[in-house]
Amino acid sequence: MSVVVVGSVAYDGIETPHGSVDRILGGACTYISLAASYFAPTKIVAVVGDDFAKEDEQLLVNHGVDLAGLERVPGKTFYWAGVYSADMNDRTTLRTDLNVFADFNPKLPDSYRTAPYLILGNIQPSLQRGVREQMDGLRLAGGDTMNYWIKDYRDELLETIRDWDFLLINDSEARMLSGEYNIKRAAAKILALGPHTLVIKRGEYGAVLFHRDRHFIVPGYLLEEVFDPTGAGDCFAGGFIGYLAERGVDLKQGHVESKELARELARAVIYGSVMGSFCCENFGVDRFRTLKRSEIDARFDEFKAFTEF
Amino acid sequence: MSVVVVGSVAYDGIETPHGSVDRILGGACTYISLAASYFAPTKIVAVVGDDFAKEDEQLLVNHGVDLAGLERVPGKTFYWAGVYSADMNDRTTLRTDLNVFADFNPKLPDSYRTAPYLILGNIQPSLQRGVREQMDGLRLAGGDTMNYWIKDYRDELLETIRDWDFLLINDSEARMLSGEYNIKRAAAKILALGPHTLVIKRGEYGAVLFHRDRHFIVPGYLLEEVFDPTGAGDCFAGGFIGYLAERGVDLKQGHVESKELARELARAVIYGSVMGSFCCENFGVDRFRTLKRSEIDARFDEFKAFTEF
Repeated sequence: MSVVVVGSVAYDGIETPHGSVDRILGGACTYISLAASYFAPTKIVAVVGDDFAKEDEQLLVNHGVDLAGLERVPGKTFYWAGVYSADMNDRTTLRTDLNVFADFNPKLPDSYRTAPYLILGNIQPSLQRGVREQMDGLRLAGGDTMNYWIKDYRDELLETIRDWDFLLINDSEARMLSGEYNIKRAAAKILALGPHTLVIKRGEYGAVLFHRDRHFIVPGYLLEEVFDPTGAGDCFAGGFIGYLAERGVDLKQGHVESKELARELARAVIYGSVMGSFCCENFGVDRFRTLKRSEIDARFDEFKAFTEF
Repeated sequence: MSVVVVGSVAYDGIETPHGSVDRILGGACTYISLAASYFAPTKIVAVVGDDFAKEDEQLLVNHGVDLAGLERVPGKTFYWAGVYSADMNDRTTLRTDLNVFADFNPKLPDSYRTAPYLILGNIQPSLQRGVREQMDGLRLAGGDTMNYWIKDYRDELLETIRDWDFLLINDSEARMLSGEYNIKRAAAKILALGPHTLVIKRGEYGAVLFHRDRHFIVPGYLLEEVFDPTGAGDCFAGGFIGYLAERGVDLKQGHVESKELARELARAVIYGSVMGSFCCENFGVDRFRTLKRSEIDARFDEFKAFTEF
């Protein structure tokens, strides 16, 4: 079943201890949709400028991504540049040029409106809300946010996530949103804001899924080399929603409390972790130029092997 | 089967955001032996001064800990005081008075020499080596160390761990010992130094077990309140060795590569994590005054529930 992905398509300048690249394809919508495309038909809603390269469009097409909602307008594509610390655990933004993204007002093609799965990348909460309202018959909707919206657009954000099924954020954002340092308490407060499912991402340490009164914890995959972590969180989101769409998981249809649903959500978190780990293996989206579904499933099995006891 | 535990018995002054206590029972040997005592007969080798309180001795006796190797000498017991940061992730040592521990030279009672399991708490590497040499017929021996020995007693430490079956250290120590930031690379270098089994502890994020060419990762238990993390790493060690002793795991007897051994080591890591998590629930060793084996096994089952997919 198909997934609608909304967010930024961007060009990135990235500097890591392994080297630097400029103007490579990036943006939350790009990473989410590439990761999700391995599991389910994926449709994007985004905006690019007239500098958007044919070969970058082609990468999305090669992954079967539906570009009917990709708006092209005069001007330049969103540009972001950042540099990572030696241990890759911190990054500093060097430049953010919103360009055509400054006026982004996501409009859904008619062919998107009845898609059952929706994931909203990190954009202004009111825009996220506007997209959700354009859709009909959703089985599962949710998304991501960031410290900037939590801090300065709090009311708008709370109004937006109230209707979400799931929220994916990192641990520092969870702390900021809840006002609780402890992850378990933070989760309880966030679940009271609306979403019944919360995934707190912990970078190299993995992620925790909270679903009503249960939780599931996955450790991070141990890579021998983290080449470039840009987009890993978005690829996690793509693997997560992609797997749920592939399986046709329907949280609205009454099997909400079942053990099988908890297991499907846990597996979605594993596939999210798998996609995040592959993302780190090369610069930008490069790993997805060659990645095969068989490699994804093999890594899923690895997660089983190193967590089972 | 019985376990010999060597290390410090101390009095601690601890300040956390939850309050402060002074001169409460502590020390690596104390924590390791209390945790191990839930699984297997435990014998300690340590030194205390004439200020060592009868009630503190009684707590160990109540847990069936063999005190034949607890030396009592004139003077004061080792004293340590520290204060934790607000998020509990850092601590600052305020005071270290070695007192009678300064001249500690562990001597094993004859009744200890043929015990099959040995765990060496964090003391000077040459003393750790001396203990190991006094034992005969060991099935499994290993221990802990710390940044001080890694930095200033490196050769002595390397000579000591060469003969160990397992080494338990935290992530920053693993990085320091190996010179590698990446955990997987660090582990490969450390396994080449002698031990076939390495556990890297990651605080609230859990632990990673490396055993030859396999690894196993356990996430940390999510506590709603970390009351006092003092001794958690030592309790991990106690649960780890205790479980292996309870099961009679014998790494010398040829089934070294078997899947079942890998599973036993993984379960030992889970029991270690369980004991570490209980330790954090109250000041010092207080949680062990009431803790029951049934609670330990229930938490083991919880680990299964929140990691299975």
